[in-house]
Amino acid sequence: MEMRNTFMGSAIAKIVGANAKKQNNFEDRVTMYVYEELINGKKLTEIINETHENVKYLPGHQLPENVVAVPDVMEAAKDADILIFVVPHQFIRRICSTLYGKIKPTAIGLSLIKGFDKKEGGGIELISHIISNELHIPMSVLMGANLASEVAEEMFCETTIGCKDKVMAPVLRDLIQTSYFRVVVVEDVDSVECCGALKNIVACGAGFVDGLDLGDNTKAAVIRLGLMEMIKFVDAFYPGGKLSTFFESCGVADLITTCYGGRNRKVSEAFVRTGKNSQNYQLLLLSLLKKLESSYATIEELEKEMLNGQKLQGPFTAEEVNYMLKSKNMESRFPLFTAIHRICIGQLKPADLIDCIRNHPEHM
Amino acid sequence: MEMRNTFMGSAIAKIVGANAKKQNNFEDRVTMYVYEELINGKKLTEIINETHENVKYLPGHQLPENVVAVPDVMEAAKDADILIFVVPHQFIRRICSTLYGKIKPTAIGLSLIKGFDKKEGGGIELISHIISNELHIPMSVLMGANLASEVAEEMFCETTIGCKDKVMAPVLRDLIQTSYFRVVVVEDVDSVECCGALKNIVACGAGFVDGLDLGDNTKAAVIRLGLMEMIKFVDAFYPGGKLSTFFESCGVADLITTCYGGRNRKVSEAFVRTGKNSQNYQLLLLSLLKKLESSYATIEELEKEMLNGQKLQGPFTAEEVNYMLKSKNMESRFPLFTAIHRICIGQLKPADLIDCIRNHPEHM
Repeated sequence: MEMRNTFMGSAIAKIVGANAKKQNNFEDRVTMYVYEELINGKKLTEIINETHENVKYLPGHQLPENVVAVPDVMEAAKDADILIFVVPHQFIRRICSTLYGKIKPTAIGLSLIKGFDKKEGGGIELISHIISNELHIPMSVLMGANLASEVAEEMFCETTIGCKDKVMAPVLRDLIQTSYFRVVVVEDVDSVECCGALKNIVACGAGFVDGLDLGDNTKAAVIRLGLMEMIKFVDAFYPGGKLSTFFESCGVADLITTCYGGRNRKVSEAFVRTGKNSQNYQLLLLSLLKKLESSYATIEELEKEMLNGQKLQGPFTAEEVNYMLKSKNMESRFPLFTAIHRICIGQLKPADLIDCIRNHPEHM
Repeated sequence: MEMRNTFMGSAIAKIVGANAKKQNNFEDRVTMYVYEELINGKKLTEIINETHENVKYLPGHQLPENVVAVPDVMEAAKDADILIFVVPHQFIRRICSTLYGKIKPTAIGLSLIKGFDKKEGGGIELISHIISNELHIPMSVLMGANLASEVAEEMFCETTIGCKDKVMAPVLRDLIQTSYFRVVVVEDVDSVECCGALKNIVACGAGFVDGLDLGDNTKAAVIRLGLMEMIKFVDAFYPGGKLSTFFESCGVADLITTCYGGRNRKVSEAFVRTGKNSQNYQLLLLSLLKKLESSYATIEELEKEMLNGQKLQGPFTAEEVNYMLKSKNMESRFPLFTAIHRICIGQLKPADLIDCIRNHPEHM
């Protein structure tokens, strides 16, 4: 088993390590790929393997002793039957090309990575499809309302695993489920993964509504219309899914937390309140982000990551999705996604949002 | 057309009056039943009809001139083709017996009343069923994330009309829809009405989670499991509905606002934070409510209504629903509803909530 060293990676390693040790159908040893760095002159992998604490990404939490930090991704992955991917999505192609041909041909993958990536030759692609195509392994995904910090604290939450393989579904559930981390497995892999990406667009809209002080009803309407566009988007581009998947943790629950507590919402609200209407929204976002997130100082890396923009996916996902919609001449069927994108690139003012959705196709 | 004088009644009268006047397929005159009282020595109906402002229930908002306040409910209703019911639900049986035989036999009804009522001979009954049975008229319902104050302010929101009759559906939509109050009509009347009642139970659970500081993930999980139990409840007791109805404003949107902004949530949070674990939860709730809601002082009547408990429906609905579940031996299939009820009557502590849902049927 292999996973990469991040905040969420360590939180999941804690769960997977404990489950692997407790259950006979898993090998005890869980290898965790850790990008090597020096902490006070000592290698991070050595610290983790001696103290069983990821002092950099999950300080204050004990990892099970069977979780072994490995600085070489090939070494970490080569004997694994189950590969768990928890990396920033811009690294995924490089990691896949490193691993190609070096993993077990029978391995299966589980991706926790949220977001799309641009497809070579146009369009966008789900991350699990990229991994599956590059490594020739079947992929499942795990998404839901599970913020890493609360998972690490063992606070009760739910998650959704999308897995097409009926034999592997209970294996993955047993690997992930604990008394506080509750799993529902559905077959509808693409819908699960799309939810994880698309919710961040809606959260920008929710943030604009908050910034404009439009009230609770309006916010609920924007979130609901966002959910309807998520459903319609999946139906248009990844057809064959089930409506019930959107009632899972990956759907409505993750959407709710993201639209009330999330970072995309917060920054979008701040964007409106500053009253600026910059053409260079992305630069403005990053500077706002820097100010807002200074409270994260104890986890220095998190801030650094966010300054690279990767954690603030809403505007970027809105752009990718709009690229798809535009090329298919479908913008008018997705007025909320389209308006949010146009606000993000400075073509519309936040105050124009509501006028764009007054005659939403849902109201026809 | 007839409606009763309440905060929401006046907000809807404003919409209906404007639409009736603007559109040729409606008679201009909208009568609004107003319980007569003296304001500074002058009759409220006279004030409304002279100033076109409901100084008591919707001060500061102009009602259209074609909305006529009438102090006699029979007089208000007798010539109406469409009867709109917006009364506290404990008054509904008395009003129906007053109106019986005095209304047009071809009239149709639209109920905005949320909640169940106890059935004579056991069980519970939807309010629209009571009206339909008593007056022998077909009933539609209107529910959704539309707080009266924000509707009156003309802030953008959505609503759901449940109407079985395909001919009447567009008529009701035209009567209610404005550029800021957006209507979706579905055929699934019972599901729409159940959503309006059941969400208040879930909001109590959300409030307990807030009071216990359990975090965003846990709250999202409780809201989602609440939604799943709402769906299952409707399927068990009012079968034949559509899953998609729960994605309408009456479903997921109203649930979200109620669980983040609503009164049931607020009082339930306060209940936990006070650290009291009284056997007489209802009395405690009412005293908390009095303190919390002092901000509503400008609308004196609202506070009075709330002190009668009618606006704090969550614990009462939880009790009624539990009565149904217990009698059918179905409590274990609804662990969240059951736990919330038991906390409300002092059989469980709020901190026990999560243990009751760790092994939720959804996770099997």
